[in-house]
Amino acid sequence: MWKPDRQVKKPIYEQIADHLEQRISYGEFPPGSLLPSERKLAEQLGVNRSTVILAFAELRAMGIIESRTGSGTRVSTSKWEATPKHTPNWSRYAEGGSFLPNLPFMRKIRESLAQQPSLIDMASGELAADLAPIDEITALMGEHRYTSYLGYDNPQGYTPLREALVSHLERQRGIRTTESSILITSGSQQSLYLITQCLLSPGDAVAIEDPSYCYSLPLFQSAGLRLFRLPVDQYGARSEDIRSLYKKHRIKMVFLNPNFQNPTGSVPTAERRNQLLAAASELGLPIVEDDPFSLTAYENSPPPPLKSMDPLGSILYIGSFSKIAASGLRIGWMVAPNAIVERLADARQQMDFGLSVIPQQVAAQFLNSAYFDPHLNRLRMQLQFKRDLLIEALRKELPGLITFSVPQGGLHLWCKLVPEVHDGKLLDEAIRKGIVFVPGSVYGSESGYVRFTFARARAEEIAPGVAKFAEALRSLLNTAQ
Amino acid sequence: MWKPDRQVKKPIYEQIADHLEQRISYGEFPPGSLLPSERKLAEQLGVNRSTVILAFAELRAMGIIESRTGSGTRVSTSKWEATPKHTPNWSRYAEGGSFLPNLPFMRKIRESLAQQPSLIDMASGELAADLAPIDEITALMGEHRYTSYLGYDNPQGYTPLREALVSHLERQRGIRTTESSILITSGSQQSLYLITQCLLSPGDAVAIEDPSYCYSLPLFQSAGLRLFRLPVDQYGARSEDIRSLYKKHRIKMVFLNPNFQNPTGSVPTAERRNQLLAAASELGLPIVEDDPFSLTAYENSPPPPLKSMDPLGSILYIGSFSKIAASGLRIGWMVAPNAIVERLADARQQMDFGLSVIPQQVAAQFLNSAYFDPHLNRLRMQLQFKRDLLIEALRKELPGLITFSVPQGGLHLWCKLVPEVHDGKLLDEAIRKGIVFVPGSVYGSESGYVRFTFARARAEEIAPGVAKFAEALRSLLNTAQ
Ligand SMILES: Cc1ncc(COP(=O)(O)O)c(C=O)c1O
Ligand SMILES: Cc1ncc(COP(=O)(O)O)c(C=O)c1O
Repeated sequence: MWKPDRQVKKPIYEQIADHLEQRISYGEFPPGSLLPSERKLAEQLGVNRSTVILAFAELRAMGIIESRTGSGTRVSTSKWEATPKHTPNWSRYAEGGSFLPNLPFMRKIRESLAQQPSLIDMASGELAADLAPIDEITALMGEHRYTSYLGYDNPQGYTPLREALVSHLERQRGIRTTESSILITSGSQQSLYLITQCLLSPGDAVAIEDPSYCYSLPLFQSAGLRLFRLPVDQYGARSEDIRSLYKKHRIKMVFLNPNFQNPTGSVPTAERRNQLLAAASELGLPIVEDDPFSLTAYENSPPPPLKSMDPLGSILYIGSFSKIAASGLRIGWMVAPNAIVERLADARQQMDFGLSVIPQQVAAQFLNSAYFDPHLNRLRMQLQFKRDLLIEALRKELPGLITFSVPQGGLHLWCKLVPEVHDGKLLDEAIRKGIVFVPGSVYGSESGYVRFTFARARAEEIAPGVAKFAEALRSLLNTAQ
Repeated sequence: MWKPDRQVKKPIYEQIADHLEQRISYGEFPPGSLLPSERKLAEQLGVNRSTVILAFAELRAMGIIESRTGSGTRVSTSKWEATPKHTPNWSRYAEGGSFLPNLPFMRKIRESLAQQPSLIDMASGELAADLAPIDEITALMGEHRYTSYLGYDNPQGYTPLREALVSHLERQRGIRTTESSILITSGSQQSLYLITQCLLSPGDAVAIEDPSYCYSLPLFQSAGLRLFRLPVDQYGARSEDIRSLYKKHRIKMVFLNPNFQNPTGSVPTAERRNQLLAAASELGLPIVEDDPFSLTAYENSPPPPLKSMDPLGSILYIGSFSKIAASGLRIGWMVAPNAIVERLADARQQMDFGLSVIPQQVAAQFLNSAYFDPHLNRLRMQLQFKRDLLIEALRKELPGLITFSVPQGGLHLWCKLVPEVHDGKLLDEAIRKGIVFVPGSVYGSESGYVRFTFARARAEEIAPGVAKFAEALRSLLNTAQ
């Protein structure tokens, strides 16, 4: 990212004006298009807003841009009138298709993190650098020669990785399958995308947990699906609710994240699991089981997946390396009946021609290596340690103001705020104080909940992060009075 | 992939029956679902069809499967009746969504290649192992420590790779841009997918070259677009045709692969380029410029892209490593106005959460390394050498039966067959003789054309491949008489 150079003589505002003029001349901001706002540019470039105002004034004087109150600053069209007149109406194109943008809260969180690297990140659902097996992966990459042919991959994914997963799934998740029923995807995310795009049709009704990660994904709406809620209690979703949604709305699929559910941390009892499976097979209703967190179980052995009790093939099982190794690997997998795997592999081929072979080789080696189990053990201990740091800090900073149940696995703590506060305002205030979290409404819950991720921040940031959050909450409560 | 073990005592057909029973019990073939055909299974397992027939008979006797003439072999439902009755109607789900399957010819080619490794591959549009920079990439992976944080990536792609591309594009393609206007995608394919899904709406009219690679992609139809043809002559598509399609059908976008077009090999003259740009800017019509082949120019310097003359930002430029380095890296890029890059990055985030960081690091290092230019020089020489081998063989084996113009870059030779033959029958016959090519109709052309790729087969396979093709053609011509 270009930044002005404070060492040279040329004034900062002139550097910025030159830089913008250049980008305009490259076609990055075509005639008629909107420039980023003064505030946003100032944040991106790390300068005062007044400096950007000076730069804009310079460009305006040259006739390169024009500002109209209320509609922002645009690249001038008159300037180019002599020669060609028209540029594509890009803002219209950007509204094309049925694909909805990400939720405003999620975009705000991402932008704030990009612009303020000092923010304490209790929002991103991923592992801190020191929890990821970076050294192990580096060692594996140095040990092995990747001389195999780097051509287009098998549409279902790299065969040695699928083979490694067959034994991993049997050993660690009790799931028996063969490599021909596995599809490697770009994380769980691509599995969810493929399922919603290619197995369901616009207008189909589906059930998703409330609250759940699924609610944060506009991809269900983008696919034109009608969403119905399955309330989540301490043990997750209930089969009665599935049955009644099926009766009322003929739901065609159920999306569950049974183990250490995101965001609540719930885990079903054995009885609940059996009831869910019985409902699925009696109704002939597929359940998508999204299972990224099980292997993080802090103390007891990981809870079993529904898929381990599914001889009828009613479960589409999704796993991922994101929460147990590194999200930047982008390795996930789906285990599904053969016909479904073939259909999705064929469709995915057209979307991106398959995944890069290199991270798949790395993932296969890591799974087969002696590093894998010790890594998991270390990860579990460290997650539990960080969970405890978070809980301790919350109890200290916000006694009586916040309630939660203590999760036994996963990366998140789901909290209810005792006083009534607007979660959007709380987020803004928290960002000002230097910490981000995810407002509960992102997951479809009523107002008044927050999700803290304790995996991403460094251990020493957790207490200060909670202190900042407490400041933000208190300052909102004070102004409200 | 499981294969029967010929060393053990148990008869092959029993091994196959056990293997299938196991996969059925895992839920891979749920009750009621169709098993692969006897022929297909025999090919996959490398056994005679009669062996599969025996295995099926065994399973039938056990009540595990049932066959009905004309409707194939299915997993029995009655067997399970005691306990749960229903399994999801998976074949119905597999027909969900608007995403069309790949073309039958392309599926046949892929399956044949998977099942007969000895086939000579003159169909896959990619580089042979010895043309790809495998050693260079292995060396780079050994040299560098990939210790950086492996978290979710920047939605536009790994920043150092975008920075490396800024200088690569300026130096080798004459395109000036900044890293904030670049989106890294999974090859060109994902760029095309994002454009058709997120910038256009069902019912929109677009123009694509005839013949072209675009015709082989059901993704245009999957997005509900209306396709209009731009005939390709020796110099590619013509601006007059664009203007008249715009008048008649209000086309909203034009898809071109100007340089060394796939499949024809055409390159526009300087005049044609100017006319295309003039039409785009006068009509305010975006052109998607897919440019994977330019840097393969065998002798002269690479032809310039339209994007290098596009200050108004009418061109969405797409590049890729697939045809100049390795398709298995899955690294491509789009250069586009800022608003478009941001929109597509946001949508892509929901589809797959971005690309793996590892191949992006490798690609950035390769671009910045001293290996890159020598690799390109070697690649160009070897492609020209293989093109000449192909032409020599065709002239020798099929004098008077085939015509073509000689391409100056790219991976393909586009041939017209002089005698009339059905291209589907020719493909079947060629596969029987041991060689695959792509029938011209895949690219939207009338019957009677074939595309040979000379990059993928080993040099010593090219003459034998053409001999097999000639046999196939002659045997069809003989039976036709
Ligand atoms: C429940 C759940 N499913 C899926 C995902 C997507 O993760 P990935 O695509 O990185 O595997 C997440 C990430 O937060 C998640 O929490
Ligand atoms: C013209 C053209 N565009 C795009 C592609 C897709 O290639 P990739 O996604 O590997 O970059 C191909 C591959 O054959 C092609 O020929």
